[in-house]
Amino acid sequence: MRGYGVIEVNNPGWMEKDRPQVGPLDALLRPVAVAPCSSDTHCMHGGSGPKHNLILGHESIGEVVEVGELVQNFRPGDIVVVPCNTPDWEVPQLQRRNDNNAHDRRLIGSFKFMGSKDGVFAEFYHVNNADANLVAKPEDVSVEDALMTVDMMSTGFYGVEQADVQFGDTVVVFGIGPVGLMAIAGAALRGAGRIIGIGTRPNCAALAREFGATDIVSYKEGDVVEQILDLAGPVDACIIAGGRASSVNQALQLTRPGGVISNINYFDASETFEIPTALWGLGMSDVALKTGFCPGGAYRIGRLLNIIRAGRLHPGKMLNYTFEGFDKIEDAFRVMDEKPRDLIKPIVKISW
Amino acid sequence: MRGYGVIEVNNPGWMEKDRPQVGPLDALLRPVAVAPCSSDTHCMHGGSGPKHNLILGHESIGEVVEVGELVQNFRPGDIVVVPCNTPDWEVPQLQRRNDNNAHDRRLIGSFKFMGSKDGVFAEFYHVNNADANLVAKPEDVSVEDALMTVDMMSTGFYGVEQADVQFGDTVVVFGIGPVGLMAIAGAALRGAGRIIGIGTRPNCAALAREFGATDIVSYKEGDVVEQILDLAGPVDACIIAGGRASSVNQALQLTRPGGVISNINYFDASETFEIPTALWGLGMSDVALKTGFCPGGAYRIGRLLNIIRAGRLHPGKMLNYTFEGFDKIEDAFRVMDEKPRDLIKPIVKISW
Amino acid sequence: MRGYGVIEVNNPGWMEKDRPQVGPLDALLRPVAVAPCSSDTHCMHGGSGPKHNLILGHESIGEVVEVGELVQNFRPGDIVVVPCNTPDWEVPQLQRRNDNNAHDRRLIGSFKFMGSKDGVFAEFYHVNNADANLVAKPEDVSVEDALMTVDMMSTGFYGVEQADVQFGDTVVVFGIGPVGLMAIAGAALRGAGRIIGIGTRPNCAALAREFGATDIVSYKEGDVVEQILDLAGPVDACIIAGGRASSVNQALQLTRPGGVISNINYFDASETFEIPTALWGLGMSDVALKTGFCPGGAYRIGRLLNIIRAGRLHPGKMLNYTFEGFDKIEDAFRVMDEKPRDLIKPIVKISW
Amino acid sequence: MRGYGVIEVNNPGWMEKDRPQVGPLDALLRPVAVAPCSSDTHCMHGGSGPKHNLILGHESIGEVVEVGELVQNFRPGDIVVVPCNTPDWEVPQLQRRNDNNAHDRRLIGSFKFMGSKDGVFAEFYHVNNADANLVAKPEDVSVEDALMTVDMMSTGFYGVEQADVQFGDTVVVFGIGPVGLMAIAGAALRGAGRIIGIGTRPNCAALAREFGATDIVSYKEGDVVEQILDLAGPVDACIIAGGRASSVNQALQLTRPGGVISNINYFDASETFEIPTALWGLGMSDVALKTGFCPGGAYRIGRLLNIIRAGRLHPGKMLNYTFEGFDKIEDAFRVMDEKPRDLIKPIVKISW
Repeated sequence: MRGYGVIEVNNPGWMEKDRPQVGPLDALLRPVAVAPCSSDTHCMHGGSGPKHNLILGHESIGEVVEVGELVQNFRPGDIVVVPCNTPDWEVPQLQRRNDNNAHDRRLIGSFKFMGSKDGVFAEFYHVNNADANLVAKPEDVSVEDALMTVDMMSTGFYGVEQADVQFGDTVVVFGIGPVGLMAIAGAALRGAGRIIGIGTRPNCAALAREFGATDIVSYKEGDVVEQILDLAGPVDACIIAGGRASSVNQALQLTRPGGVISNINYFDASETFEIPTALWGLGMSDVALKTGFCPGGAYRIGRLLNIIRAGRLHPGKMLNYTFEGFDKIEDAFRVMDEKPRDLIKPIVKISW
Repeated sequence: MRGYGVIEVNNPGWMEKDRPQVGPLDALLRPVAVAPCSSDTHCMHGGSGPKHNLILGHESIGEVVEVGELVQNFRPGDIVVVPCNTPDWEVPQLQRRNDNNAHDRRLIGSFKFMGSKDGVFAEFYHVNNADANLVAKPEDVSVEDALMTVDMMSTGFYGVEQADVQFGDTVVVFGIGPVGLMAIAGAALRGAGRIIGIGTRPNCAALAREFGATDIVSYKEGDVVEQILDLAGPVDACIIAGGRASSVNQALQLTRPGGVISNINYFDASETFEIPTALWGLGMSDVALKTGFCPGGAYRIGRLLNIIRAGRLHPGKMLNYTFEGFDKIEDAFRVMDEKPRDLIKPIVKISW
Repeated sequence: MRGYGVIEVNNPGWMEKDRPQVGPLDALLRPVAVAPCSSDTHCMHGGSGPKHNLILGHESIGEVVEVGELVQNFRPGDIVVVPCNTPDWEVPQLQRRNDNNAHDRRLIGSFKFMGSKDGVFAEFYHVNNADANLVAKPEDVSVEDALMTVDMMSTGFYGVEQADVQFGDTVVVFGIGPVGLMAIAGAALRGAGRIIGIGTRPNCAALAREFGATDIVSYKEGDVVEQILDLAGPVDACIIAGGRASSVNQALQLTRPGGVISNINYFDASETFEIPTALWGLGMSDVALKTGFCPGGAYRIGRLLNIIRAGRLHPGKMLNYTFEGFDKIEDAFRVMDEKPRDLIKPIVKISW
Repeated sequence: MRGYGVIEVNNPGWMEKDRPQVGPLDALLRPVAVAPCSSDTHCMHGGSGPKHNLILGHESIGEVVEVGELVQNFRPGDIVVVPCNTPDWEVPQLQRRNDNNAHDRRLIGSFKFMGSKDGVFAEFYHVNNADANLVAKPEDVSVEDALMTVDMMSTGFYGVEQADVQFGDTVVVFGIGPVGLMAIAGAALRGAGRIIGIGTRPNCAALAREFGATDIVSYKEGDVVEQILDLAGPVDACIIAGGRASSVNQALQLTRPGGVISNINYFDASETFEIPTALWGLGMSDVALKTGFCPGGAYRIGRLLNIIRAGRLHPGKMLNYTFEGFDKIEDAFRVMDEKPRDLIKPIVKISW
């Protein structure tokens, strides 16, 4: 079968591989729609370590082609929403909480696509623990909206959950790309008061306001820390959904004593941030610094779909570059890599 | 000074009283706007024990007339939002959490208006611990919206907080009067998916949908438990914001194992509810039954005002009966007592 | 193979059954040691509905005899600790939290021994999802201590977790049988201050004090509510680990506004309790009523074993009736049913 | 009146000052017993900014000499336990949670002794909000035990609360001075399994084991990170109760993905720590970094006293240098500054 991915670092392309084998708990899918993500291009450039001969892609809606003998809830032909995170649910550490790092305490062990196996930019792809990880696509949710739950909405909303946003809180979101936009939407749906997004792209800014931001602050108009302190004073929570490690320092300057800094950004292994203890209240600031990736599995995605079904959010609005046909994965991937100024998020519609 | 209240049980009327004394931490206010509440009429009818010669009222926006020597944040002429709950913040039990019952472990000890002193339907009224309990009314929030934060929004939102609503949860709200409407709005602002209100009044139902309800179920169209199970199956949370004690039993039939029943309804002392252990999973259902009244103090009200300032909710829309002038407190109170079918909530505008 | 259980209601005895089949995720075990529980005798008497031809028993240490093809962590000959609760970890609802009721929202669906299949009083018994549910017995933990983790300690400690005991809290434990004793030990290990046990049996009372109770109150010396209010005033939490449904009413009289009533008792389907709203603060008491059964799976049991390994508790001290040999399951079961006054908990040592 | 403190940086000594004035909510105390703390000597050396002509000391048991007109619970002659943290409870931000930083969002604004006013090493000292901040010393608690609740036990236990230690967790405590010892005791009382202390002083190590440590690791026997990983693998929580800012990096190497680093150490303003994102899982580690100081007020101290009254801990055991008489404050302070190798914590007994 054909797949698109990283042949070697900085060299993306098509490759030929064997169709994956299906174990008793697994499913084999073919893609209905996929969306490239900046983690895909980051991986291609070697940002998470050198990878080669690996099919990329982790955001997809799929059609079930084959299921293992123990799979009870799905059968060939079903259209399913596929979390980007697909834990092995037999791992006991997951019983403490739904934790991507539970697998032998290995970092992001539940992020299997592109991590420990090929991704979804393929004619066929494998899903472990199908009953626990797949969700039947509800008829009343569009493919676009459903596709945006599997990583963008799940990750952005996790930033809000980590920040433990309470009614009326003031929240700053660093970055107004797709993850930041979903953090903004999540903060609004969590009852925040003022929500300040940091970013510059005009159509992202417009969508940020539509999703609930009350203010957008740009690096181009001066120091963002000063601008935000002028607007709102110290804030209850900062969600870092973009930028470099130095964002943590800016967040420390913005967050009130007792507040939370919630990171959902994936940093490059080459980065370091410095925390002068003076910025940290000499250890007495009560500012918590939390970091993590969205929990995996079917349950969470089902819950996010419920929000869409109730008409409270349409994350598919972010998909402003559309490609049609399996072969267009390459074009979509290149757009994601080049990030034209008006891009929010691309989709490749394959079969529906 | 004049005040309106309960002369003796079932006999409301005007009374003459001395103007309250102001201690070092206190403030004296005159009413800018007040809203009668069903607790006021409930109290007049003796529902919380026989009261006499007591000025009623606990929902108000006020103007500061006088402050004690230790009050730092307010001075005469300030327009302030007055929580219905005004704890004495020197009570150590409040340090565990903001608890209305903290005062010598006495029930609702922080509910002072109508509880341990005269209420706000008076030419002048007393507020203890002014710095800790009053909030300056923001200029960009209308008196109507601000007035609805002090009890209705605070109580309804507390029902949502008690229910610990998570993204995508299905929530049932018993009652679509003002508190139920605020519970619906709060659940929507907390990221619930499906929100099912139980009630019959058409204009309440319309406002419930505007505030975020996806479904309205009426007792008139059959058994509400059956209707809801047909619509949604067992639900994640039930918020009881109206009805009689038997609502708890209905909620037990509706709530999934592992869910929460959150009561914010004030029952009559004559009521009892029965829980057959079979409905309670023989003690193994994991359904939590929580009950309580909104936390008091300035901080909470400030946070609710932040939500209004961000444009996310306009609770003043519930005020569909308007009276003008101090003397109209009587008419407004009688309307609250008679509850005409189209009433949602009355306001008396006094001076602004 | 032979097994001991309920032939028909009120008629326990030995029965012959086929050896269970092992699926890809499962294990077959033979018992090393087992302990009868009052749930076993309750089931035999029909308390949880009429059962027949069912092997009883759910507390065991086992030896692995056979494993399915997908089992990675265990092989024949391993000595393992077997949780009384063994969820199917492919069920998505478990991803929200480790919930015994998650299986199709069915009550205690994860309690499989005696629930949906034969129990452990058998020559061989079946464990689903072996990797997720079994724990290798640590060499430095005795069989007696390990055996007490699988239900007694897990259930008693869950009562403490539900009660959310904080440093210095005053806690009442209803019942000083094995579950109550473990609730007392758990409250002490959770940092409670005063711990008051309610019960009468002298050797249980002695062990309760050893495990951390500061006071023991007996029904024989007067009304327990009055005695406790005299001793300690209203308390922070009540854990119900014994008695009838009316204990809930006593707990409502004992628990301070803002406190928690945590039930871990398994009631008979014939029982009902009444809550007069006056006892419930007319709905404003802020007293939460929680109920549930211990979470299942390997992770939790591993954590409880860590406490034993650190020398902080020896729950095996409760095992004061010892039987030796598989055939003695019958005698141990009868002792459990008759409950002689000096019985705390029986063990049957089978093979080690 | 006389007091001992910092005349100018690095120059401690006696000074003469006016007796403090008592406002309506306040109390004036004279010391019954005091304990110097490393924060006192740190302050004298200018570590928290240059201070001059300031009486030091914040750990005391006192006798009430005078109370303000609004104080209800205390009168002259009462022996009281005095939290090191004494918030102004009229500040609304405290209503969100008991937060030392709530005062105008100023860092540690509730730490008033030595912070915004003179400390307790004086013939007389002032306590704001007496009803909310003082606790009557229980007769069944020794002065030594009571004195250790006001900072050492409260701070050490807060490290455990921040770390959210669960039953059976493995916990590392950096530092086995008095705060570290209390973190160890608190972790044991919170149900931790293995508790590993890092330190070298023999009598601290002995007391650490008595308070619940299972292992003590010393810098002198090799790299502590390697030693701990060899002993226990990645741990659930690290509590930093001593050492320099680089401890945060060691904690990042020790803490499992999903764990917590809880800092309760007061750093010097000159320190900085670096976090390479690689140590932070590229932002995906789910390791939370929390920091803060013990909450203030009477309620918390009352709860800690409950633990002592139940006989579960005797923190007074740390007081291994005893001085008698007000004038000996100087000697005790100098011992604290010099830290002889066998010192754990000094006490000055003044009047009882």
